[in-house]
Amino acid sequence: MIGQQRDRQQRRKPGPFDLGVSARWLEARVRPVIRRGGLSPRENAIVERIKLLKKEAGSHSPSAPTLIKLIPELRMRVDACFLSNPYATDLFLDYLHREVIRPGKLRKLLEFYPSQNRVIAGKLSAAIGIATDHLFVGNGAVEIIQAILHRFTGDKILVNLPTFSPYHEFVRPDTQVVYNLLPKDEDFRFDAGEYLEKVRRERPDTVVLINPNNPDGGYIPYATLVAMLEEMREVRNIIVDESFIHFACEGDDYAYRSLTHEIDRFPNLMVVKSMSKDFGVAGIRAGYAVMAPERVKSLLDNGFLWNSSGLAEYFFDLYSRPDFLVEYERKRVHYIRHSRRFFKTLSGMPGIHAYPTHANFMLIELKNGMTAEDLVCRLLVRRGIYARACDDKKGLEPGKFIRVASRTRSENRFVLRGIKDALR
Amino acid sequence: MIGQQRDRQQRRKPGPFDLGVSARWLEARVRPVIRRGGLSPRENAIVERIKLLKKEAGSHSPSAPTLIKLIPELRMRVDACFLSNPYATDLFLDYLHREVIRPGKLRKLLEFYPSQNRVIAGKLSAAIGIATDHLFVGNGAVEIIQAILHRFTGDKILVNLPTFSPYHEFVRPDTQVVYNLLPKDEDFRFDAGEYLEKVRRERPDTVVLINPNNPDGGYIPYATLVAMLEEMREVRNIIVDESFIHFACEGDDYAYRSLTHEIDRFPNLMVVKSMSKDFGVAGIRAGYAVMAPERVKSLLDNGFLWNSSGLAEYFFDLYSRPDFLVEYERKRVHYIRHSRRFFKTLSGMPGIHAYPTHANFMLIELKNGMTAEDLVCRLLVRRGIYARACDDKKGLEPGKFIRVASRTRSENRFVLRGIKDALR
Repeated sequence: MIGQQRDRQQRRKPGPFDLGVSARWLEARVRPVIRRGGLSPRENAIVERIKLLKKEAGSHSPSAPTLIKLIPELRMRVDACFLSNPYATDLFLDYLHREVIRPGKLRKLLEFYPSQNRVIAGKLSAAIGIATDHLFVGNGAVEIIQAILHRFTGDKILVNLPTFSPYHEFVRPDTQVVYNLLPKDEDFRFDAGEYLEKVRRERPDTVVLINPNNPDGGYIPYATLVAMLEEMREVRNIIVDESFIHFACEGDDYAYRSLTHEIDRFPNLMVVKSMSKDFGVAGIRAGYAVMAPERVKSLLDNGFLWNSSGLAEYFFDLYSRPDFLVEYERKRVHYIRHSRRFFKTLSGMPGIHAYPTHANFMLIELKNGMTAEDLVCRLLVRRGIYARACDDKKGLEPGKFIRVASRTRSENRFVLRGIKDALR
Repeated sequence: MIGQQRDRQQRRKPGPFDLGVSARWLEARVRPVIRRGGLSPRENAIVERIKLLKKEAGSHSPSAPTLIKLIPELRMRVDACFLSNPYATDLFLDYLHREVIRPGKLRKLLEFYPSQNRVIAGKLSAAIGIATDHLFVGNGAVEIIQAILHRFTGDKILVNLPTFSPYHEFVRPDTQVVYNLLPKDEDFRFDAGEYLEKVRRERPDTVVLINPNNPDGGYIPYATLVAMLEEMREVRNIIVDESFIHFACEGDDYAYRSLTHEIDRFPNLMVVKSMSKDFGVAGIRAGYAVMAPERVKSLLDNGFLWNSSGLAEYFFDLYSRPDFLVEYERKRVHYIRHSRRFFKTLSGMPGIHAYPTHANFMLIELKNGMTAEDLVCRLLVRRGIYARACDDKKGLEPGKFIRVASRTRSENRFVLRGIKDALR
């Protein structure tokens, strides 16, 4: 009875869900409803519904907002599935409110057609120092991945495993996918020599390198990649996905190194970049690719004329502005710093193996007998923490792996306590 | 000198650009700088820049915001290129401010991934009464057009002329485009009998019917279309683009009739629908198509997983709500009523021939010796009215045609005065 009353009270006041509240505050709200041991019948019923939704969503988890909408009694507090820098989201929202919403300029962004692809590419050009004719602006990176796979990829594509699933899911039916299994026993370390050997043996027309890799966070250094590009001049299409590159530091001062400036030396190179991760704006759907001008032209000649929204155009406007970039850089470094501390603590927890990461998430293997789905459901129902079970990820043993994203500092502390409790 | 001073003053206070101000107010602002006769050297210089931009934009006019950005000295007052209901934009913005921005919920729409295609299709299903598995949600109608042309169209497509250019521009290189010229001398009237004859003769695998047609506004009645569908069962793909159907009334009470409910009888039918026109939200990029479930599946299996933005998802949420729809219906009827009065007055002007329209725009042929580009530039530079020169529209004699959209009531009055003066 008391439990039921508490539930009802909590239902009347939904949790804050990612509003930057303190870990202590979150803890205080959650502790009263936590019971040691197994789940209650009500909690179990919610778990069943989560599992069903997950099944329906295929190889991608249902998004947190979808889960909240479809299971209203769920109190989501931290979305640790979501691979983005929340401080960058703050920054974008600050600008949007100050420059667009408050001065009454939102109407223009929503009513009228945004600029065409090439105009927006011009803005991006100013931001990243790549000529406009090398840039293809996409409605999110997934659109670009699909366009490349359907227009440039031929008979055979080589994809590392584990990987981001669209690279094998969205190929044409007549494209054969060949996998390069990254060795789990060596922390999914990428071996350039072995890889090149496989390329020579299999002769794929397209290879995909995600750097840092999703879902394990492994990183291939810049020099290695350039040396590999030299060796793969015969491969028709080389896709390097740098969606997480802003979190991978090479050298001092948290600097990162993008391959985009090698584009003129390697006409077979296509660098794909999502803006959803580093800038925390997945909802506006923005991404781009750097590729040879004739490839950009081939894509544009077949559509993609108005594929950016008004808000995406505003984002690319901001991205080209030094004032915004200076502030963004601060948010990026701040986020990387506390993410590293988070990953360090997480790695030290008993009952798991944490894979070394250069991204803003960590792949964790459960070693205490719990299944990934059980841990994820328990975290979600008990704590409102949503982590990613990797059961459907090709190349990972089902039931063993979860992926945890770094969020705000206080949310990360809350996640650490939640996982610690749940692993007991 | 006086002219220069005035210019500078105006430059400091940019015009309101479509803020629903009265025609008299606009008139009072503009009259002082109008000189009878030819353009000033400064105005001519602006005209040259507009012509250059137009040339660079290809077969689509540069958008009003692009023009304003690239030619800051231009004072845009009415965007009569823009084919949307501005009262519906007001309505959407009202909801967005009240339900999302003021309660602080914008962050969720921008930070997180929107729902996947099928989830958003479920919302749309509730709005239009078509089963979810028949619905493909697009990032604007152009994305859908491109997807259909690239995935379903084969060797030969039949397209009416004049038409919306993506239907011939975005075909695959191996697709032959056959045109059906609508007769100018009969006001571009569509003749179903002749059309079916052409279909039998040419044997296209895909036919495209835009209803009402863009850019002339011609309309094919519902019963005629259904009869035609019966006769075209052998044609593999029938695309009916209903992007302007909300403005085309058939029967009493401003009711419109969509073909979407015939989808089960005609598995070769694909109804394409932009939301940019009737709902005035081009900047959020939203559209959909109704088609056989196996076609939807084939598109989804190859991508389009996250092709809607957070704002587009919010729009589809609204669209499924009866309270929003009741208010929208009022805006739609109000807009149609005053648009009809606008078109009636426009038709009566000397020196032009106005083609009968069932859409929210009117195609006008110049009969007074002026070229379309001259008229458009004069309207733009002198009055800040942006109308569409149709010089690049296949099937229309270059230099002869402009297309004028209906905007708010006061803007339409201002446009009428501007055109009247410019035609003198």
